[in-house]
Amino acid sequence: MSTSGLNMSRRIRRTPYTDRVEAHGVTGFSVVNHMLLPKAFGRSVAEDFIHLREHVQVWDVSCQRQVEIAGPDAGHLVQWMTPRDISRAVPGQCLYVPLIDERAGMINDPVLLKLADDRYWLSIADSDVLLWAKGLAIGRGLDVSVDEPDVSPLAVQGPKAEDLMASVFGDAVREIRHFRFGIFDFRGTRQVIARTGYSRPGGFEVFLRDGSLGPALWDTIWKAGMPLGIAPGCPNVPDRIEAGLLSYGNEMTRANNPLECGMGKFCRTDGQVEHVGRDALARIARQGVERQIRGIVFDGGPCPPCGKPWPVTAEGPDGPRIGQVTSAGWSPRLGRNVGLSMVERGHWDPGQPVTVLSVDGAERPGAVSGLPFA
Amino acid sequence: MSTSGLNMSRRIRRTPYTDRVEAHGVTGFSVVNHMLLPKAFGRSVAEDFIHLREHVQVWDVSCQRQVEIAGPDAGHLVQWMTPRDISRAVPGQCLYVPLIDERAGMINDPVLLKLADDRYWLSIADSDVLLWAKGLAIGRGLDVSVDEPDVSPLAVQGPKAEDLMASVFGDAVREIRHFRFGIFDFRGTRQVIARTGYSRPGGFEVFLRDGSLGPALWDTIWKAGMPLGIAPGCPNVPDRIEAGLLSYGNEMTRANNPLECGMGKFCRTDGQVEHVGRDALARIARQGVERQIRGIVFDGGPCPPCGKPWPVTAEGPDGPRIGQVTSAGWSPRLGRNVGLSMVERGHWDPGQPVTVLSVDGAERPGAVSGLPFA
Repeated sequence: MSTSGLNMSRRIRRTPYTDRVEAHGVTGFSVVNHMLLPKAFGRSVAEDFIHLREHVQVWDVSCQRQVEIAGPDAGHLVQWMTPRDISRAVPGQCLYVPLIDERAGMINDPVLLKLADDRYWLSIADSDVLLWAKGLAIGRGLDVSVDEPDVSPLAVQGPKAEDLMASVFGDAVREIRHFRFGIFDFRGTRQVIARTGYSRPGGFEVFLRDGSLGPALWDTIWKAGMPLGIAPGCPNVPDRIEAGLLSYGNEMTRANNPLECGMGKFCRTDGQVEHVGRDALARIARQGVERQIRGIVFDGGPCPPCGKPWPVTAEGPDGPRIGQVTSAGWSPRLGRNVGLSMVERGHWDPGQPVTVLSVDGAERPGAVSGLPFA
Repeated sequence: MSTSGLNMSRRIRRTPYTDRVEAHGVTGFSVVNHMLLPKAFGRSVAEDFIHLREHVQVWDVSCQRQVEIAGPDAGHLVQWMTPRDISRAVPGQCLYVPLIDERAGMINDPVLLKLADDRYWLSIADSDVLLWAKGLAIGRGLDVSVDEPDVSPLAVQGPKAEDLMASVFGDAVREIRHFRFGIFDFRGTRQVIARTGYSRPGGFEVFLRDGSLGPALWDTIWKAGMPLGIAPGCPNVPDRIEAGLLSYGNEMTRANNPLECGMGKFCRTDGQVEHVGRDALARIARQGVERQIRGIVFDGGPCPPCGKPWPVTAEGPDGPRIGQVTSAGWSPRLGRNVGLSMVERGHWDPGQPVTVLSVDGAERPGAVSGLPFA
């Protein structure tokens, strides 16, 4: 079973764009950070994959909530939360930052936006980073405020995203570099626009402050996108798998450390930066990891949605279990299925033959792939 | 719209009982603590209401995750997290404890199980209390561990719950007092069973340790319940409204303090207990609150599910807005709809006439009610 009814309530928060995605015929949701994330609009995932790579889509990703950390100790707290050295980050910069606990287990993997030396946003995946940050700050007596501001990201993704955004916000958006942001006017308000997004083609995210402007922002982008073939969309599973973009709670949990997640390049492991989990992470770095995230490419025709993990074995379907596929989908580009799995040491070299035991009972032959997919 | 498709993924965790609730034909879910909560089995909410009050139901409430706080400073940390004075709590006792932040905003409203002087479980509503507790502990340097153990509560609720449980676990379960727990054998394991639950008829919750025993526990209870007319169920909205049982994220958020939530009797507000938010709560207690939780009883025929808040007005539908209904349902017992709303001071006396502007466009006349409903 891949879908069932979702019972709505205030607790599963609507977004400033939910009325619009309903008007566009949304057919499925997920729940992230106690908020609705549209997941389907009645088209197939493969159709969306192709459209995303050729045109432009608008995505309601309000569930990427911002945790704002501000005040004299803001930089201190943010650095304490991540093994990534942020000492040389500058205002206007976005950084992908693993957050870890005292055992180096993953808490979240947000994008950090440095607004000023004393003001940061963490654009979070699905866990209550606000409570984590606030607990650390209160426990340590830091002089910071930790809040969830009224900010609701709207993503514009795909190869025509730049033309669309330039037509709305001016040619200056073309100058925004990868993982940088600028401040742009929308109806007399100043809004953060970043060159970021959870897709391989990439694009922009508007970090809309003031949800009452949501419908107007959606309508403005929609109107500007019509000549470009815009469609309502959402993070596309095979596209983000091919890009090597992980999903917290799917590919990784608190049981995984950032080195397993392939985030070594975002971690100081020499103990020279003070952060929660420093000693645990340094020890893991010395010892090496027992498993690591990999791509899996596999056959047997288009796979069903991966609603629960599928075992991955070596040496045939009855061989040792070496991992589990936690996200999967059909790639029209490759004409094969792509998936993500932690894979045990000794089996993780690209090309290693594997079998994926998908939920439909099929034993699907495949192989380990590097990330991102070639 | 009250339901739409829920896209399944590992991130929306299945429980040890999900296979069983699927076999029983579950038709709707909610998501709580990153985990599935069954919400419907193809019968009407009114039918479930009547059955729950007459027979016995088994509920998969695994989403009530346990946050285990253990170690020399465990009691210190738990007391620091709540304004309720827990100094006289004894092992075997359950306590309803509001958790608040530095501004006295509600973080969660768990049931605390005191397992030992140095070991506690918080049976939580929908927010990551684990991250909050761990952040406070690490920030303050407390000597505790904070973990989510492999514990998955299964609720047995309704007037025949005691007979059912006695037939499985022995007559000693009859001796468990309200909000107490005992330790009972299940297949050679020692399991916590409490006289607790999220219903007006009440019953028991088995805090099953070791999810691999889940199907066996479900099947055992199901078989014992068949002569008693057992049905699969879930928290019933009009039943728990009548009981005055709140839902975190629906009736209250971090924007509400525990005195607004009617939890004054669970709060020391004299500043004599040291806890996060002590000064803020003492100030609010001195000044009094501007709104407080109330029941709303209203007419106009059975209302639709309350998927988003419905405004409540005084002096007719065009009068001042004095609250919003955040949960609602038809009560077969009263032959009227019941709801919950924060209600502004000056309008909160029982009997106060109101109008509920439900999503179907109907202007429904009603009145304020005390809690629990008479």
